[in-house]
Amino acid sequence: MKKYSDMYRDELFQNVLPFWMKHSKDEECGGYFTCLDRQGNVFDTDKFMWLQGRQIWMFSMLYNNVEKRQEWLDMAEHGARFLQQYGRDSQGNWYFSLNREGKPLVQPYNIFSDCFAALGFGALSKASANNSYAEIARSTFENILKRSSNTKGQYNKIYPGTRDLKNFALPMILSNLSQEIEDTLDRSVVDGLVKEIVHEVMDIFYRPDLGVILENVYPDGSFCDSFEGRVVNPGHNLEAIWFLLDIAVRQNDEMLIQRLVKIALDVIEYGWDKQYGGIFYFMDVKGAPVQQLEWDQKLWWVHVEALVCMAKAYQLTGDNRCKEWFERLHEYTWKHFRDEQYGEWFGYLNRRGEVLLELKGGKWKGCFHVPRGLYQLWQTLNAEVKVEKKEIITT
Amino acid sequence: MKKYSDMYRDELFQNVLPFWMKHSKDEECGGYFTCLDRQGNVFDTDKFMWLQGRQIWMFSMLYNNVEKRQEWLDMAEHGARFLQQYGRDSQGNWYFSLNREGKPLVQPYNIFSDCFAALGFGALSKASANNSYAEIARSTFENILKRSSNTKGQYNKIYPGTRDLKNFALPMILSNLSQEIEDTLDRSVVDGLVKEIVHEVMDIFYRPDLGVILENVYPDGSFCDSFEGRVVNPGHNLEAIWFLLDIAVRQNDEMLIQRLVKIALDVIEYGWDKQYGGIFYFMDVKGAPVQQLEWDQKLWWVHVEALVCMAKAYQLTGDNRCKEWFERLHEYTWKHFRDEQYGEWFGYLNRRGEVLLELKGGKWKGCFHVPRGLYQLWQTLNAEVKVEKKEIITT
Repeated sequence: MKKYSDMYRDELFQNVLPFWMKHSKDEECGGYFTCLDRQGNVFDTDKFMWLQGRQIWMFSMLYNNVEKRQEWLDMAEHGARFLQQYGRDSQGNWYFSLNREGKPLVQPYNIFSDCFAALGFGALSKASANNSYAEIARSTFENILKRSSNTKGQYNKIYPGTRDLKNFALPMILSNLSQEIEDTLDRSVVDGLVKEIVHEVMDIFYRPDLGVILENVYPDGSFCDSFEGRVVNPGHNLEAIWFLLDIAVRQNDEMLIQRLVKIALDVIEYGWDKQYGGIFYFMDVKGAPVQQLEWDQKLWWVHVEALVCMAKAYQLTGDNRCKEWFERLHEYTWKHFRDEQYGEWFGYLNRRGEVLLELKGGKWKGCFHVPRGLYQLWQTLNAEVKVEKKEIITT
Repeated sequence: MKKYSDMYRDELFQNVLPFWMKHSKDEECGGYFTCLDRQGNVFDTDKFMWLQGRQIWMFSMLYNNVEKRQEWLDMAEHGARFLQQYGRDSQGNWYFSLNREGKPLVQPYNIFSDCFAALGFGALSKASANNSYAEIARSTFENILKRSSNTKGQYNKIYPGTRDLKNFALPMILSNLSQEIEDTLDRSVVDGLVKEIVHEVMDIFYRPDLGVILENVYPDGSFCDSFEGRVVNPGHNLEAIWFLLDIAVRQNDEMLIQRLVKIALDVIEYGWDKQYGGIFYFMDVKGAPVQQLEWDQKLWWVHVEALVCMAKAYQLTGDNRCKEWFERLHEYTWKHFRDEQYGEWFGYLNRRGEVLLELKGGKWKGCFHVPRGLYQLWQTLNAEVKVEKKEIITT
């Protein structure tokens, strides 16, 4: 597998990071452009907070973990200054989007803006001497926990009491976020949270009878036969599984690793499009029509996260099925998503694997899943495949 | 064109209405099932208010305009009883959805629930001796006008003042709704509203330089270079144009007819997929990537409304280009959307015209666009094509 490690490293440093270094910095107004067409031209100047926070994290993480390259730190601080100045309302909630100049466009209805801001500022606080970054990460994280029972606040359109469902997305993001910024937080808070999240995912959202992690369940974990209750997002499953594999490695929990790898293999078998290849975006666990019209599309992040998941699963268990899935995914992604000509990867393919939107970045795709995945794959595939030596792939 | 008229009439009465008569009535809890698979089996029992109101309208309209068939009136009143009992909050706003038993699921954030409730109760008030229906239509309509400056109320996520855009959907629906329920309303209110709406569509949302009606513009009608500002929905354009053609006929405004037909021809030429046929769902007026992942899909309502638009345009002008477009649309829709085997039409095709979701009804597709369109086509195509005699196709 080591030959792949070099490929992913080179892809990161030669084909992907240069794209963002060259095209995404808004020198005039601050922050990052993320709406970039195939060649890297800016086609929209709005600043979407998920992607601003994620890009701060990406360059800070590289600075922290790979090399103290000044241009990476500069890039991270460039975004941080913009977010620090314009990103929050008076209560410290992060807006969903700003216009180019930093004026708010969409209210803080979406807690993932806060999650990715905390992620970015947390990583940057390790890289930079500026003390304010750690404080922003900390207060944002506290605010997330405070808002976690009703993350949308006044914007929550669900009528209370009729069908109160728990959603998988926040525990999943927190499982990653709490590890990423643990140095900034109180150790006991992180430990308690991680324990709770592992329980939530494995005992509430994962359904052994169905073989998948559901996106929405009743508070007691029981199945809700509705559009929201039936939907399965295989990419979410596989991304969450590698977050939890990292936790299992840190906790030296071999049983959890075995359970997770079994689920990963079930999910990818279930989510794989037997006709055209690739992983479906959304599926209905009862086989009913889904409400998401984009259900059969092949998305970059789904496939990148699946690659990371299978690489980690193989590295931790030596299970040959994981290697085979990794290689199948590698072949599919490099053939369909990678853009040799202009750098970075395409984001959206139709079911047949043809490019559906030629963008490299947009409202939801930024400098995040592709470079993070390439970094993870470079590191993971470079490690020895040894079942007994699990601490090898801590990220 | 008269041969087509019979085809559409037969399709309505033999292939489409029987499907809804047979499968959609919830005898146990009231209201209608709309989530029906290809064969008509119920795959979800939630009650989405847009579709409940629209189905009441559909059967009431047939009763009013075609024949006093008791089963149609019964079907309409069956839905009305459910909505009357469960559909509104204490302020008279209509919920977005209820569960099967009528308990609210999603709050009244969406004013189109109110629009289609008013549409349904308005039509039913003409058919039924029950006086409460007219009162519901009237008070709902007043409430819509009251809410029209901020239809989403507390659920509005747009930050005020940075980029306040006007949206095309409400004026468009009101142009149809105000005509449909005019008997229930004050005549001067309707006349004033219609005048204002024609102005809004033709002078604010229609952009002669771009040749299309935009979905969102600045209050003064100027172009906003953002995802929302750039998006074009050709189906919306064509549906609005036939609503306005009806208005132009009533007002005997030959100039407006000519302008509308020109726009319709421009829009369908622009929206037509030259590679695979059919009309795109969303496009970007500057050719940038759209945010809607389903942009290239072929939707039933888009094509049904385009058929109605071209049939009316031809009937009113005798312009041969309209006839050619009608015939091209006829061929495409009957080949790809129609389901000879189980009745009704498919709703969602991929770009190539292959069925993407096998449902006949769901969260957004109910007993509305297909039967309404078939009724309109039956009537329109049966009328003489006479440029000078415009009042022929009043609906």
